[in-house]
Amino acid sequence: MNFAILSAGYIAGVMADTVSRMREELVLYAVGARDKSRAQAMAEKYGAQKSYGSYEELVSDANVDMVYVASPHSHHYEHAKLCLNHGKHVLCEKAFTSNLAQARELVALAKEKNLFLGEAVWTRFMPFVSKVKELMDQRAIGDIHALQCGFGQELTHVERMTNPALAGGALLDLGIYPLTFASLFFGTEVAEITGDAVLTDQGVDAGNSFILKYRDGKIASLLSCMTVWMPNTGILFGEKGYIIAHDFWNCQRLTVCVRGENPYDIECPFEISGYEYEVRAAIKAIEEGRLCCDEMPWEESLRLMEVMDGLRAKWGVKYPFE
Amino acid sequence: MNFAILSAGYIAGVMADTVSRMREELVLYAVGARDKSRAQAMAEKYGAQKSYGSYEELVSDANVDMVYVASPHSHHYEHAKLCLNHGKHVLCEKAFTSNLAQARELVALAKEKNLFLGEAVWTRFMPFVSKVKELMDQRAIGDIHALQCGFGQELTHVERMTNPALAGGALLDLGIYPLTFASLFFGTEVAEITGDAVLTDQGVDAGNSFILKYRDGKIASLLSCMTVWMPNTGILFGEKGYIIAHDFWNCQRLTVCVRGENPYDIECPFEISGYEYEVRAAIKAIEEGRLCCDEMPWEESLRLMEVMDGLRAKWGVKYPFE
Repeated sequence: MNFAILSAGYIAGVMADTVSRMREELVLYAVGARDKSRAQAMAEKYGAQKSYGSYEELVSDANVDMVYVASPHSHHYEHAKLCLNHGKHVLCEKAFTSNLAQARELVALAKEKNLFLGEAVWTRFMPFVSKVKELMDQRAIGDIHALQCGFGQELTHVERMTNPALAGGALLDLGIYPLTFASLFFGTEVAEITGDAVLTDQGVDAGNSFILKYRDGKIASLLSCMTVWMPNTGILFGEKGYIIAHDFWNCQRLTVCVRGENPYDIECPFEISGYEYEVRAAIKAIEEGRLCCDEMPWEESLRLMEVMDGLRAKWGVKYPFE
Repeated sequence: MNFAILSAGYIAGVMADTVSRMREELVLYAVGARDKSRAQAMAEKYGAQKSYGSYEELVSDANVDMVYVASPHSHHYEHAKLCLNHGKHVLCEKAFTSNLAQARELVALAKEKNLFLGEAVWTRFMPFVSKVKELMDQRAIGDIHALQCGFGQELTHVERMTNPALAGGALLDLGIYPLTFASLFFGTEVAEITGDAVLTDQGVDAGNSFILKYRDGKIASLLSCMTVWMPNTGILFGEKGYIIAHDFWNCQRLTVCVRGENPYDIECPFEISGYEYEVRAAIKAIEEGRLCCDEMPWEESLRLMEVMDGLRAKWGVKYPFE
């Protein structure tokens, strides 16, 4: 499988490094960026055969099987569409698109073209997820009724965060992670969503908090901010104790605290960077002729875009291109 | 100052123990309970001179200067009123009353009788509060824009928590603490309150989450549940790092985490149990002829009751006596 990377930014670099270490599974074949020299530098650094100074050239290379779209989420729709229209399988960074309408179009196009299209929410594919699910099945902390998850990074100097034209704001860039954490462990049966946000002068959310109430009576309290640093933990609360997912968005360690017993850690380390799991899941789906991954099916990508559209509508966050 | 304790439950015992160790400051004079033998046992254990088998007898003792009302919050209104009508200063456990109307009546009565009336939210009076405020003044973690605070204890076997006639539910018993944490550090200028709750079959909130958005753009994300255990931390998030208040409701240790530096702890231990600070503040106010404490003025007790009334109205939690 020949793997190509669209964009040469930070995340693209982590993926290039990861895939270059997965030689037995796939080939890091090409890097494409708007700036030819950056594409070339990344291709050389990680041993990709080809580099292109435009996305059109990248997707026109008949040897590319699959493209990882690593541009900001404001451009996922345009870039994923470009790839699908050139017959390429697509692994697209999160948030999937800027809104539900764009996500629906992409899914329809992938179906029409019979191509794989997956949202690369790396958190969903990591080893800690099955560890937590095992603990839940074993009722290690009894019945679980609530969770709390916050994600904060001081990113006010980063243009993609602050610019409405780049679908800025904390929700799509950071809030997608707490939302993912809740969805992973509390599922999809949401009865009610409540939330509030603090907006910047430019009209995107600097910080937000939202609450998901589930049909079975669970409650998830979530928070994301681009103005402050947080410890970034996700915690599941049960009648006998709690499970802490440290650095929940790229979690490699859990702490299980049962009341009256000594807490214990469960290590769930990555083999490489944590990106390998989403790549493997995508390859497996493609090899088996499936158009999306079980870990992140289209219905789920669409559902989460709908949740975020709904929250933005409540908060009055509208992007200029909408 | 002759101090009396109304009720002989768990909290009454902690207070009796505390006051018995404050001999140079005040006298643990009497204990009153509906059950004479329990009152007597507690009086003997902690060296109180008098014990009474009814609250009426307790407040009729002319030597009692001040009564600590330690009954469940469903009975604070009735018991505080009884004390005030008998000319006693009152230190009343939290939540102040069951609703705003009751709180307003008590405050009016205290004013009329020219007696001290204070809400015993011990958290507000503890040494950690001024430590955190110092750190905020020093901008130890830069500007602070958000906080997260959760309080959970598995208390579904406790009748005062589950019975609507006892003003049950997580909010008034547990939620008052995260609300206090937010109020202590983010103040009173709340622009918007949003929240949701999961109700029990009896119609009180088993768990809730609510969000306070402040006029200056801060946001507080709060959670309380009576069905699960939580680590019970309060965290303030700033642009340079965060401050963790461990066991925030009776906090004796802070951890300050500045990005790129080693985290450090600040110890803020209690002298006795943590109850001594609210007692001292009450005595000081009484000696200075003030009718409430600066740490928890009437306006603040009334404001928080109003916040909780508003949340309950949203959630459809109504007590049978309302």
